[in-house]
Amino acid sequence: MTGIGDDCAVIPQKEGMDTLVSTDMLVEGVHFLSDEITPEQLGWKSAAVNISDIAAMGGRPVSTYLSIALPRNIGEEWVMRFIEGYRSISGMFGVPLLGGDTCSSPDRLCISVTVLGECAHGKAVLRSGARPGDSICVTGTLGDSAAGLKAILEGRRRDDLVDRLIDAHYHPVPEVEAGLSLASTGIVSSMMDVSDGVPSDIRHIMEESGVGAEIHTDSLPLSEDLQKACSLFGWDPLSLALEGGEDYCLLFTCPPGSELPVEHTVIGEITDTGRLEWPSSGRNYQGFRHF
Amino acid sequence: MTGIGDDCAVIPQKEGMDTLVSTDMLVEGVHFLSDEITPEQLGWKSAAVNISDIAAMGGRPVSTYLSIALPRNIGEEWVMRFIEGYRSISGMFGVPLLGGDTCSSPDRLCISVTVLGECAHGKAVLRSGARPGDSICVTGTLGDSAAGLKAILEGRRRDDLVDRLIDAHYHPVPEVEAGLSLASTGIVSSMMDVSDGVPSDIRHIMEESGVGAEIHTDSLPLSEDLQKACSLFGWDPLSLALEGGEDYCLLFTCPPGSELPVEHTVIGEITDTGRLEWPSSGRNYQGFRHF
Repeated sequence: MTGIGDDCAVIPQKEGMDTLVSTDMLVEGVHFLSDEITPEQLGWKSAAVNISDIAAMGGRPVSTYLSIALPRNIGEEWVMRFIEGYRSISGMFGVPLLGGDTCSSPDRLCISVTVLGECAHGKAVLRSGARPGDSICVTGTLGDSAAGLKAILEGRRRDDLVDRLIDAHYHPVPEVEAGLSLASTGIVSSMMDVSDGVPSDIRHIMEESGVGAEIHTDSLPLSEDLQKACSLFGWDPLSLALEGGEDYCLLFTCPPGSELPVEHTVIGEITDTGRLEWPSSGRNYQGFRHF
Repeated sequence: MTGIGDDCAVIPQKEGMDTLVSTDMLVEGVHFLSDEITPEQLGWKSAAVNISDIAAMGGRPVSTYLSIALPRNIGEEWVMRFIEGYRSISGMFGVPLLGGDTCSSPDRLCISVTVLGECAHGKAVLRSGARPGDSICVTGTLGDSAAGLKAILEGRRRDDLVDRLIDAHYHPVPEVEAGLSLASTGIVSSMMDVSDGVPSDIRHIMEESGVGAEIHTDSLPLSEDLQKACSLFGWDPLSLALEGGEDYCLLFTCPPGSELPVEHTVIGEITDTGRLEWPSSGRNYQGFRHF
C-alpha cells in the first residue's frame, strides 16, 4: 500500500474479495463538545465509529483516511494528542492511516474519517436480509455509553463506576472479531452496529428488509455498572439502553435457536407487520435523533 | 456495487488491479464563499477536485462518497441544487455516489468527498519517479482559474471573456482521459494535478523524487482569454499562471523528447540540484499557500 505523499493511496485488489467503504463526519458542537472530550478521546472515537461500520458488515478494516479542519487556536500539541488517540485504535486493529487532508477552519473543528475494509466477495452482511421469525440479537450490553454521557453532562463526581461508564462513551471498541465470526456462520441474515440506539437502528433493518420487529424490553442486556448507576442516580435504565445509542455493539438477526460462536442476547424478533412494537412495555422508544 | 442504505458501500475487487483513494475537505470561508459560488458550482467542484486526484495517478474513478455538514439555515432547495452539480460531474465520468454522511452544522458548510478509483496493479503514476534530465510538462493552460477568481473578487463586469474565466474557476474538468493515456505510455516518470499552482505542486514531485527543477516562465501555456484579460485589466499573467492554482490540469515528467499521445507543453526540466529555479525570470514564485 502506498499512502501519504501522493495524490491518492494505492491498495492492491484481490480476486474474490469485496472492498467495503465507510465514511462519517464529526462536527464540533454537534457530535462533540471540545471542553468535554480530550483530543485523544476524539481521535479514538473518530476512527472507532468507522471501523465499527466495517465490523457491522462482517468485514476486516484495511486502511483509514483522515480529513480535519483545524481552527487557528488549536495548537500542534492538540493535533499530536488527537493523532495519538487515532493511532491507538487504528494500531489496535492494524489499520494504517494512508491519506487525508488537513485544512484550516474559521472556528469549529470538523473531522471526516473514511475507512476501507474487505470481506469475501458477496459475503458482506447487509441490512436487507432479515426474515419474519428471525431472532433479533445484540452483542455486548446496551446503555453504558449513554450513561457515561449523562454522567458527564450532569457533572457527576468521578469514581471508578462513573469512570468506566465515561470510558464506554469515549472509547468504544468496535466488534471486528465478533462481526467476522458472525459473518462466517453464513446464517446471520442482517447486521448493523448500534450507533443511534436500537429503536432507530432496527428501523434501518426493517426498511431495508421490508419487515417489522418486536423488541422485548425485559430481555435487554444491561451491565452491572449501568444498573448500579441507575439506582444510585435515579436514572431510567431502559431509556439509557434504548435512547442513547453509541454502544457500537452489533445488532443482528438470525433464525431462532441458532448456535452462534459469539456471546449475544436475544432481544426480540422480526415480524411481518411492518411496525416496530414493544409488547412488554407500555412505551414506544425512539432512539437518538440527529438534527 | 452496493451503496447508500447500509453501513458500508461494497465494491468487488479484481485481480491485477489497484484501488486508488483520494479524499478532500472544503470548508466555507476557507475554500469557498457561499455568496460567491452557487450550490451547483460547489457540488461540481467538490467532486471535481477528487476525481482530478484519481486522474493524476493515471487511474479511472469508480465511486464517490459525500459527507456534508449543513447549517440549519440551508434549505432543501440548496441541497438539491448542490447534488445536481455534484451529479453532473459524477455522471460525466460515470462514477456513482455510493455513500456518505449528512449532519447538521452550527454555522458553516463543511464538505468532505472521497473518491475511489482503480488502475492496473503497480501502474499508478506516483510523484516519486522523476529523474534529472526529465522534461516537466503540463496538459492544458495555466492561470484561467486564478483569473476567474480574480474577476469575481474584483467584481469585474460579466461578459463572455469574464464568464469563460469564471467558468474555468468553478467548473474544472479533471483530465481523466489524458491521465489514462499518459500512464499507458509507461514513460511518464511522475505525475500530479495542478491544485496549488506549479511552484507548490512541483515541490511535491521534487521532495518525493529527491530532485530539483527549473521552470521556464517564457514557456508557460497561457490561454488567449488569460492574455486578453491581463492586458485589459492590467493583471500579471505569470503571477496568475503560477500563484493561483486550481487549474486541475496535469503536471508530469518524462524523458526529454518523448512522443506522447496527449497535447502538452514542456515548461521546464528536472535537475539534480534539489532546488527550484527560475532561469528565465528574476523572481521566485511560490504558488498558493493554505493557512
